[in-house]
Amino acid sequence: MADQILENIQWQEGEISRADRERLIQQKGTTIWFTGLSGSGKSTIAIALEKALYQRNTLSYRLDGDNIRLGINKNLGFSAVDRAENIRRIGEISKLFSDCGAIALSSFISPYRQDRENVRTLHEESGIKFIEVFVDCSLEVAETRDPKGLYKKARDGKIKNFTGIDDPYETPKNPEIHLRTDQLTLEQEIKTIILYLEQQGIIN
Amino acid sequence: MADQILENIQWQEGEISRADRERLIQQKGTTIWFTGLSGSGKSTIAIALEKALYQRNTLSYRLDGDNIRLGINKNLGFSAVDRAENIRRIGEISKLFSDCGAIALSSFISPYRQDRENVRTLHEESGIKFIEVFVDCSLEVAETRDPKGLYKKARDGKIKNFTGIDDPYETPKNPEIHLRTDQLTLEQEIKTIILYLEQQGIIN
Repeated sequence: MADQILENIQWQEGEISRADRERLIQQKGTTIWFTGLSGSGKSTIAIALEKALYQRNTLSYRLDGDNIRLGINKNLGFSAVDRAENIRRIGEISKLFSDCGAIALSSFISPYRQDRENVRTLHEESGIKFIEVFVDCSLEVAETRDPKGLYKKARDGKIKNFTGIDDPYETPKNPEIHLRTDQLTLEQEIKTIILYLEQQGIIN
Repeated sequence: MADQILENIQWQEGEISRADRERLIQQKGTTIWFTGLSGSGKSTIAIALEKALYQRNTLSYRLDGDNIRLGINKNLGFSAVDRAENIRRIGEISKLFSDCGAIALSSFISPYRQDRENVRTLHEESGIKFIEVFVDCSLEVAETRDPKGLYKKARDGKIKNFTGIDDPYETPKNPEIHLRTDQLTLEQEIKTIILYLEQQGIIN
């Protein structure tokens, strides 16, 4: 049977391209990049969006601290150089996933504008859509939520260079999507993103 | 319309898993790791396999020097430490792709047994299939092919630590697939791999 199938293969000219893969899985490779303070709601939104996309038969893949900081980036610390390298690598991986045809959902504080711009450029140079989602809530609200108890530790001086406390968060100037998570419900947030993806022809 | 679709979403408990993604794209996430000398035929086989899988509606993604060495690993050289880090990162990325449900096709000389074993362990610890393909041909044949003119440069001393010349290639002890590319046609090689994938239930 394998023989027969292989004899029937119509060999294409050239290599399989991103367009070929997109045709195969009927979607458009894209990176959705969630940036915002710790506790702003990035992961909550990414997890909910992943489900919403799945229900629409769309393949997405989440990149976050769990599978990145403990995996490929486990040899990086939190110095300025390592933080930049952390975001650079995540940007490269996001690009590979979107080049594969999937929707990469990358949620990282990524506090520095230049680092995010570099990732955007990396995508756009290859003709891949990059959607920056500013997951915005006030420091006060994020600190009240403090899901991992990190703000308390930063206030107590047990964590240094913590974004929002003693390290800056540089807000996006022109994000494709701006979500005020202290004013919207999770359902409204997902709705906003899905609508944008539809309008951009990324999903049907 | 977005509203209506979103209201109809049936929220699942928990997060989307690898099994969910595999169900969605109807295949089994796997890493196929091609190892062998420069000129042994790794890339040729990976490119042909990618086409064969595509013809079978199977999503695969090739990781190779073009998209890795010039991308995420562009800050690595060829020292022993950097070579190990190169393979470590590629292993982590392969694992992310197979976790996504795709078939990662990773073709790198990867001359050291320990580096390859680490990548295997990384996959197997997560219950992901890792298929090592030993792309085997004699040094003499590889050197005659010399597609990039690298052996000549190594013999002339213009490249140091070149695998097979002045750096060792440690052959796999128990590769899942062993291809003698100086004895098989490309079609036979692809047939062998496809048959193995079928037997393992990775593709239908």
